[in-house]
Amino acid sequence: MSQVFNFSAGPAMMPKAVLEQAQQEFVNWQDQQTSVMEVSHRGKLFMQLVGESVADFRELYRIPANYQILFLQGGARGQFAAIPMNLIGEKGKALYLTGGHWSATAAKEARLFAEIDEINILEQSDESRVGKLDFSEIADQYDYVHYCPNETISGVEIFDLPNVGNAVLVADMSSNILSREIDVSKFGLIYAGAQKNLGPAGITIVIVREDLIGHARKETPSIWNYEVQSKSDSMINTPPTFAWYLCSLVFKHLLAQGGIQAMERRNREKAALLYDYLDQSKLYRNTVAKQNRSLMNVTFTTGDEGLNAKFVAEALENGLQALKGHKVLGGMRASIYNAMPIDGVQALIAFMQKFERENG
Amino acid sequence: MSQVFNFSAGPAMMPKAVLEQAQQEFVNWQDQQTSVMEVSHRGKLFMQLVGESVADFRELYRIPANYQILFLQGGARGQFAAIPMNLIGEKGKALYLTGGHWSATAAKEARLFAEIDEINILEQSDESRVGKLDFSEIADQYDYVHYCPNETISGVEIFDLPNVGNAVLVADMSSNILSREIDVSKFGLIYAGAQKNLGPAGITIVIVREDLIGHARKETPSIWNYEVQSKSDSMINTPPTFAWYLCSLVFKHLLAQGGIQAMERRNREKAALLYDYLDQSKLYRNTVAKQNRSLMNVTFTTGDEGLNAKFVAEALENGLQALKGHKVLGGMRASIYNAMPIDGVQALIAFMQKFERENG
Repeated sequence: MSQVFNFSAGPAMMPKAVLEQAQQEFVNWQDQQTSVMEVSHRGKLFMQLVGESVADFRELYRIPANYQILFLQGGARGQFAAIPMNLIGEKGKALYLTGGHWSATAAKEARLFAEIDEINILEQSDESRVGKLDFSEIADQYDYVHYCPNETISGVEIFDLPNVGNAVLVADMSSNILSREIDVSKFGLIYAGAQKNLGPAGITIVIVREDLIGHARKETPSIWNYEVQSKSDSMINTPPTFAWYLCSLVFKHLLAQGGIQAMERRNREKAALLYDYLDQSKLYRNTVAKQNRSLMNVTFTTGDEGLNAKFVAEALENGLQALKGHKVLGGMRASIYNAMPIDGVQALIAFMQKFERENG
Repeated sequence: MSQVFNFSAGPAMMPKAVLEQAQQEFVNWQDQQTSVMEVSHRGKLFMQLVGESVADFRELYRIPANYQILFLQGGARGQFAAIPMNLIGEKGKALYLTGGHWSATAAKEARLFAEIDEINILEQSDESRVGKLDFSEIADQYDYVHYCPNETISGVEIFDLPNVGNAVLVADMSSNILSREIDVSKFGLIYAGAQKNLGPAGITIVIVREDLIGHARKETPSIWNYEVQSKSDSMINTPPTFAWYLCSLVFKHLLAQGGIQAMERRNREKAALLYDYLDQSKLYRNTVAKQNRSLMNVTFTTGDEGLNAKFVAEALENGLQALKGHKVLGGMRASIYNAMPIDGVQALIAFMQKFERENG
């Protein structure tokens, strides 16, 4: 097969140029005659990589100087636990806005460590639609308000910022980090597992406002204590160096491509192509309200699970990989993160048209 | 430079054959036209890799059927927290045998979560020597007894098993796992960060006896709850797939090389060469008692920090990398894990002889 496109929701495709560079220097990094994964994380060359990766990420996402950037282990699910450990304080409770699998899972995990109130922000309706997001009158009771601006499984994205007044807003951006411009200064903390838009699985980025650091409960593992990690360059223990290295290459690649503005333009273009096609199709449909359609995860179904399975199998034969929807939802899902070229979306639409002609 | 040898204590060198295979299939794994890091951890091919890696590791280390093998995130330091969370039960406290930096750090972290008693097992002496290890009369008071059989920084290894009667013995084998035969059935739990003998940084192996699973306190993060992880094939969240893949290649490589017996024979040969040379040298000395000399981390010094620095710099010019000792101890350290060929030790000794002639 000459060309494949990988629509995996995560671990997801990486930029081709990044993989090729990593392959080329795999056993001889920086002329050391060793792999980057074989050198000390505290050595001069790796520390230089760390410094540049933090600076590049700060530039890419326009992160203000009063935010620390941590590179941690444990995935977003690790942060589901770490966030209440670090941020629950005087008020003793947090508010979780839930609108899908991941925000609900975050709330469930947080309940192991703190009192959690939960508000379902999905309106009762035929389509998935996020309701009004004004919590300014109640948010002051909470140490923080948590939400997930892109639900990977259902393909529901929240573009408007929840209004939480002066409360601390925390966001799980695992599946939409670096996909479009945001105003980081509106958030207290943003976190993301790397395996969708940042790099490979096994590294997690936390962007945290400095005044929120230093209040962890005693029973916080050192590797997740934001104060401990921010004082030691995220190296209280050996970090996942190869994953960090790949993230650093992704950041440089994104900067070279024009940064987040260019990514957002391209992501909006890719998503529009696909949603426009879906909206005129007689075979497929997407069930998310227009204002909440994810730029990253496009879900669709024929409404017939047998036909969906046939679609997924034939797509694979045509080099279009990993289009099966998450098991909790069924149907199909095309994840079109930053690394997915527009060619991939066009190839998918061409196949969908052909399949519609043959099965419509 | 034609040939280098990397004596890094960790992240450490990987087997050359493993790196070359990984490089070769870096962008086209299993004929998928994608990298192994770009595919779903729950896909058929990756699940097959997982199954084989667990079976290979079980075979390599002769792990009895009543032990689970978990592949987790967070490093050994993550387990410093996870172990008391999972194993502290009715007795409410644990005993930590400390004989160096890492065992002491494990005890310090555990104190965040439980009552910890600590016994220093290093005898007061000119050389580092581990005293008698019979704790059978007191061990019953504790939910478990923890020790570190190889202290990476000082190069102190404990070859005799501590006698803890019927109590649960827990060992941090980060720097000597798979280096020599052990009787796993004597342990309740063994854990190790990968970055010395197993694979790259970012993945941690836990071998845990099944009767110890299922007693975690409520405030245990899901990703470190042994029951949760053992029920979900270590996939309660996305695992560090590329690191896991590299570990799986290392296991197959070790099996092909003759398994642990062959590794132990070679490791004893490498260490003997180096210690025999040190013992007859008039310039260098090792300060560990003979019965506690590590097979993995060989520390030595000229006794003069200026000369030590000269040694490290000239060694590097001769392709012998990362010989500087840990900052808390000074001097030199040659880490000679499984992946270090005997040629590397011979090259080091040849350089040491030359340096001794020139500076003795």
